[in-house]
Amino acid sequence: MGLAGGGTGLAGVDVGGGGIRLRIEAGGTTAAGEDPVPAPRRDGRMDLHRLASRVARLVEETAPDLDRLAGMAIGTTGLPGLVPDPGVLWRALGDRFGLRALVVTGDMVTTHVGALGFRPGVVVAAGTGVIALGTDLAGVWNRSDGWGHLLGDHGGGAWIGARGLQAGLRARDGRLGGSAALLDRLTARFGSPSELVALAYAPGAAAHLLASFAPSVAEAARDGDAVARAIWDEAGRELGRSAAAAASGLEPVVSWGGRLFDAGDLLVEPFRDTVTALLPGVRLTPPRGVSADGALALARAAVAGSVRSRPPYVHVFPGTGVSGTGVSGTGFHGAG
Amino acid sequence: MGLAGGGTGLAGVDVGGGGIRLRIEAGGTTAAGEDPVPAPRRDGRMDLHRLASRVARLVEETAPDLDRLAGMAIGTTGLPGLVPDPGVLWRALGDRFGLRALVVTGDMVTTHVGALGFRPGVVVAAGTGVIALGTDLAGVWNRSDGWGHLLGDHGGGAWIGARGLQAGLRARDGRLGGSAALLDRLTARFGSPSELVALAYAPGAAAHLLASFAPSVAEAARDGDAVARAIWDEAGRELGRSAAAAASGLEPVVSWGGRLFDAGDLLVEPFRDTVTALLPGVRLTPPRGVSADGALALARAAVAGSVRSRPPYVHVFPGTGVSGTGVSGTGFHGAG
Repeated sequence: MGLAGGGTGLAGVDVGGGGIRLRIEAGGTTAAGEDPVPAPRRDGRMDLHRLASRVARLVEETAPDLDRLAGMAIGTTGLPGLVPDPGVLWRALGDRFGLRALVVTGDMVTTHVGALGFRPGVVVAAGTGVIALGTDLAGVWNRSDGWGHLLGDHGGGAWIGARGLQAGLRARDGRLGGSAALLDRLTARFGSPSELVALAYAPGAAAHLLASFAPSVAEAARDGDAVARAIWDEAGRELGRSAAAAASGLEPVVSWGGRLFDAGDLLVEPFRDTVTALLPGVRLTPPRGVSADGALALARAAVAGSVRSRPPYVHVFPGTGVSGTGVSGTGFHGAG
Repeated sequence: MGLAGGGTGLAGVDVGGGGIRLRIEAGGTTAAGEDPVPAPRRDGRMDLHRLASRVARLVEETAPDLDRLAGMAIGTTGLPGLVPDPGVLWRALGDRFGLRALVVTGDMVTTHVGALGFRPGVVVAAGTGVIALGTDLAGVWNRSDGWGHLLGDHGGGAWIGARGLQAGLRARDGRLGGSAALLDRLTARFGSPSELVALAYAPGAAAHLLASFAPSVAEAARDGDAVARAIWDEAGRELGRSAAAAASGLEPVVSWGGRLFDAGDLLVEPFRDTVTALLPGVRLTPPRGVSADGALALARAAVAGSVRSRPPYVHVFPGTGVSGTGVSGTGFHGAG
């Protein structure tokens, strides 16, 4: 997809474990770009310098004729928490694209805006990991899960893949709870269990390696394997529990996002059943768009002046404060 | 403990996630030594060069007056599988101590010999990780679990600690399945959840960090917390399932080893109930000794010529083959 040559645009960027996704809007046209390499990390934290370079390159490849960008929003995994200084992105990208406004936020926020527009409610984002955000984009910011593959992310891709691999290895050992179908898929995919072990314990590889087996667990479930089916059922219930926990203080509106939901009914049915059981009167609304769409909407709103910094959730550059890293308000002012 | 000065001895060494434990026997006396630093690893594999240095230093500190060692046996975590070349230990330690025989084997084998002498049966070893070995030390070698904290080790210290931390974070989020008592202990131990996250995802730290919380889960269980109690119950059941899976082709004799069993009834009761249910007629026998005791017994048997190489489980140096890495027989010949 190309854009009409020249002119000024808006960019929405989603940075997840699966890579970088971009939406650029200019002159009434929208273009999409993708860089499938996982987000750069160093010592367990997002490497914002390398991220800025990759975002810039992706923008230039996707819209080579664009003169400048009025606004950009970046929703990144690891925020809040694993991003040491979001100002790095402003310093690297602000002048380069002539930005009037840059929003740096978590992908849970861009997924929320992508799914619900700027309406209050809960959005569960599930890919490799899981995070639920319940917010009115003003005073309520409920976060549930998002603790990573060792401490949480219950029901996410890494969780599903790990349970699937574990069930395969149980079958290998002759332990209760094993699945021969999952062992077959484990072997087809990784070779012997010891080859799997070498891959899974390589530094920094775990979550994505585990999550890469989730599609195999989905296939086995669709082929009738009861163990695989039970894994997906429990995953959907876990996502439902996270959604319910994040709904405190909000009207019960729930949506979802993230590639794990591409699994369809396998996940959505137990998710819906659990949310309905835990949140009486809930309105479950399919997502309007994805995280990159939410980022694009945030970029547009930021240029219109209706997004304010809300650390640690939302950072807007340039800030209205003296420091330029801006803490200027209490939230968003319904845009979209 | 000191040894009678001078003379020749035997050494048994246990190398686990919790450190190195040593037994030295000489002149009818036994001395014990311990180096509590975890086993050295590099790129996810045991670093045998550094391990050899630490074992040598520990021997020399524990028995400074000993002239030489006739035999040594080392039972190490990560074998079979994560130890690239056991011959490294022979080359580093053989001449240094004037060894006539060195046995290099997995800590599951030394734990087995420590618990059951040289009798056939199943021994479940549980510390940070879990492995069950069912063997007659001849033709039957059934291994169950031992897949590490990402892929298995069900019911082990890291598994218990992870479930405990997850239950604390569930409480923090307001999700179902949480435990306020475990959240209190998490906070007391690690500070905020984000401090815990930083520690848990530091490279190479996961399993031990997780396992370090297992004692807190035990305390909470003893104080009546139902979630913590359920974690230990399920851990015991998982260990029982691993034991049962490893019993195939053997008389049903089951014992156990490893520091996790220091938890006592909290673990032993559900373990015993599960083993009894899955293996009718089972004889559950408390362990005679620990892994270092088993290693000492193996060293003694090796000097007597009654231990033969059985790759990948048992390596005896010097081998009887030309290469010196010896594959000379089909197993042990009842010693002890």
